[in-house]
Amino acid sequence: MTPADCEGFFATLDELVADDYILLDYYLECSGDPREAVAHFCAEQSTAQWRRVGSDEDLRPRFGARAVELEVLERDRPGFSYGLEPEVTAGVSACRVRIAHPHRNFGPRIPNLLSAVCGEGTFFSPGAPVVKLLDIHFPAAYLAQFPGPKFGVQGLRDRLQAYDRPIFFGVIKPNIGLPPEAFSELGYQGWLGGLDIAKDDEMLADTDWCPLERRAELLGTARRRAEAETGTPKIYLANVTDEVENLIELHDRAVARGANALLVNAMPVGLSAVRMLREHTQVPLVAHFPFIAPFSRMERFGIHSRVFAKLQRLAGFDVVIMPGFGSRMFTSDDEVRANAAACLEPMGELLPSLPVPGGSDNALTLARVHDKLGTVDFGFVPGRGVFGHPHGPRGGAASIRQAWEAIAQGVPLLDYAAEHVELRAAIDAFGTR
Amino acid sequence: MTPADCEGFFATLDELVADDYILLDYYLECSGDPREAVAHFCAEQSTAQWRRVGSDEDLRPRFGARAVELEVLERDRPGFSYGLEPEVTAGVSACRVRIAHPHRNFGPRIPNLLSAVCGEGTFFSPGAPVVKLLDIHFPAAYLAQFPGPKFGVQGLRDRLQAYDRPIFFGVIKPNIGLPPEAFSELGYQGWLGGLDIAKDDEMLADTDWCPLERRAELLGTARRRAEAETGTPKIYLANVTDEVENLIELHDRAVARGANALLVNAMPVGLSAVRMLREHTQVPLVAHFPFIAPFSRMERFGIHSRVFAKLQRLAGFDVVIMPGFGSRMFTSDDEVRANAAACLEPMGELLPSLPVPGGSDNALTLARVHDKLGTVDFGFVPGRGVFGHPHGPRGGAASIRQAWEAIAQGVPLLDYAAEHVELRAAIDAFGTR
Repeated sequence: MTPADCEGFFATLDELVADDYILLDYYLECSGDPREAVAHFCAEQSTAQWRRVGSDEDLRPRFGARAVELEVLERDRPGFSYGLEPEVTAGVSACRVRIAHPHRNFGPRIPNLLSAVCGEGTFFSPGAPVVKLLDIHFPAAYLAQFPGPKFGVQGLRDRLQAYDRPIFFGVIKPNIGLPPEAFSELGYQGWLGGLDIAKDDEMLADTDWCPLERRAELLGTARRRAEAETGTPKIYLANVTDEVENLIELHDRAVARGANALLVNAMPVGLSAVRMLREHTQVPLVAHFPFIAPFSRMERFGIHSRVFAKLQRLAGFDVVIMPGFGSRMFTSDDEVRANAAACLEPMGELLPSLPVPGGSDNALTLARVHDKLGTVDFGFVPGRGVFGHPHGPRGGAASIRQAWEAIAQGVPLLDYAAEHVELRAAIDAFGTR
Repeated sequence: MTPADCEGFFATLDELVADDYILLDYYLECSGDPREAVAHFCAEQSTAQWRRVGSDEDLRPRFGARAVELEVLERDRPGFSYGLEPEVTAGVSACRVRIAHPHRNFGPRIPNLLSAVCGEGTFFSPGAPVVKLLDIHFPAAYLAQFPGPKFGVQGLRDRLQAYDRPIFFGVIKPNIGLPPEAFSELGYQGWLGGLDIAKDDEMLADTDWCPLERRAELLGTARRRAEAETGTPKIYLANVTDEVENLIELHDRAVARGANALLVNAMPVGLSAVRMLREHTQVPLVAHFPFIAPFSRMERFGIHSRVFAKLQRLAGFDVVIMPGFGSRMFTSDDEVRANAAACLEPMGELLPSLPVPGGSDNALTLARVHDKLGTVDFGFVPGRGVFGHPHGPRGGAASIRQAWEAIAQGVPLLDYAAEHVELRAAIDAFGTR
């Protein structure tokens, strides 16, 4: 590209109609002149050849992605991060670039959005093998074309009649291998102990040894019994993760039998299929997070997990389960907070989604999650912390509710445990972890 | 886990019924005893809590993933690769492990397969933040539950009446911004020059400035004219990448108007949605590769791209476009060859898919692709190499065919160019790259 060619891929924000552009923040390592590399980067994700041979047309003003900010963070690096070794023709620079990408290029379609902002153009720009999409910002005009969550945080709270506190989930364990009868008894005990939501594990599918229909029937019955006995609404969260062509039918069969929220493994099923299910659903939709960490774990490569949090809200999830706090989940506190914020912060007219940071939680970790998030608008989702509790799931769920009572009353956990045997047992069982 | 607990997650292959297990090869870095880390790794992806509290049941023999090979590649590393820093309690080891995962846990469902073999269990195993799924091997009994490609390599060749040579694709450029009329004229010229297949770019969607229906109508007409003028069958490959709920309708509308193959961005749309489209399609399905490199580029983290090549064939793609040879595409020769082999090698009763390694190709790069693959069963897919050729697309396509004639006749390219002006012009235009 000539210097004049490059300039066609730069702009200032005030030259552009804000509603026409998605803003994208990237980290980028490139060889040679950063400004030329960024022009190529914009070209590759939009109109790389901007005129026909023999024509003097210029498609860039209308269809070109354009850099609106470029900050060179580091010059003359010894090479690329992560030992990547493409042909290097000049010193390597590390940059942060903000790109305005015209959404008219693809429209309000999730697969086409992904292809444009984190597809071939992003990861195969010449001389720039190390890139991370750090964040994505949608204009109101674009967001208005997506329905987003159908129920949102308030809708979920209303269904549970649960206000001013976290929502208490429990992943029924053993997650794999039990028949529906034994499985539903565990859920029932969890609800009696104080769970709001008893859920299928993300790996539990509609198998012959635990068919979804039978599971939903038994857990629906158990749920209604638990509601009658406790006098509070409960949710059975059934995993309908399956082939796309089965989603609507599984929704209908599960909901008809008593499931009153549905779990979908968002990325394995595909965000677009979730958007389809969202149009149809009668109950809240809950995302689980497989297939995101391989994109997001590297500091300087891939796609930041907050991009997926935003896209899951865009697709219509009412609840987003995500990797939580603590070294066990390989996710920094800042990243967990960024993901929670992506669920809750203003986003056009879309309802907020409930963030649920999870991973090896139990009664001892609740205070940490609450403190780090600084809000009660979150879900707490132990697995073994409830279902591996020495007193069984009823005691396990009770230990979680007791931990919350201690927090809400400002009483030290150990003091509260002196008068609450389930909490005491949780501390003894999980305290060394 | 106690040592006895660990043993429940190991087995030898001859103890297992081969048809019941998918075999998974992982690279894994872990802290502490590798054998214990691998037991946790198996547990996390299958039945982490294998009995109910108060029961002496053991769900592992039937539902546990089990390590059948473990090789410690390196002991006492100074830390984890890529600067990852979880809590380390003991020396770090690097391992290669083969795991037998019982597919009864999830069945023949792509989203559930992905969740099990590269989901939370894989990427959040305690003390093991660095992991790469290197390969996946399916037993015949599992493969038999997937239809795979509907047409395959032979079906595509029969449709084109093109044998004993590569299939010549061209990506119509400018890829974004032209109205259907101008766009179709470019395709027409490409076919006259010798393209088998003129294709939409993977970023071109069903937009108001270039609606798919109108594009398919004009390119369908242009295709039939080109077929009449050249006396050979041609294909217009229309991009139907869109929201999942539109796929079937876009198929019907595009095919009715003259598209005779369809492009889908596999991972952004989702492999399961592709499987649904495969059941319905009347024409070959072609995969493009956005959203794979962020998983696969790191040597020791993520998911190897050959896993996606296999999954795309499983989902039913007749053609798989993939990053090709040369430093421009940041993909090693071995990786490109592994992906091509995944398309062509025996895989149960599934038909082979045509591999199409692509990226900045032109008449000068054809010999390299042919030599490195060692077969004519591949597609060649220039963009600017045809549509940015100084003589325009007709000359550009002719230059590709001339390059193949030179290869087939064993004539040096420069010699052949002496009598073929389009090839000569391609060498002059692209030869310095």
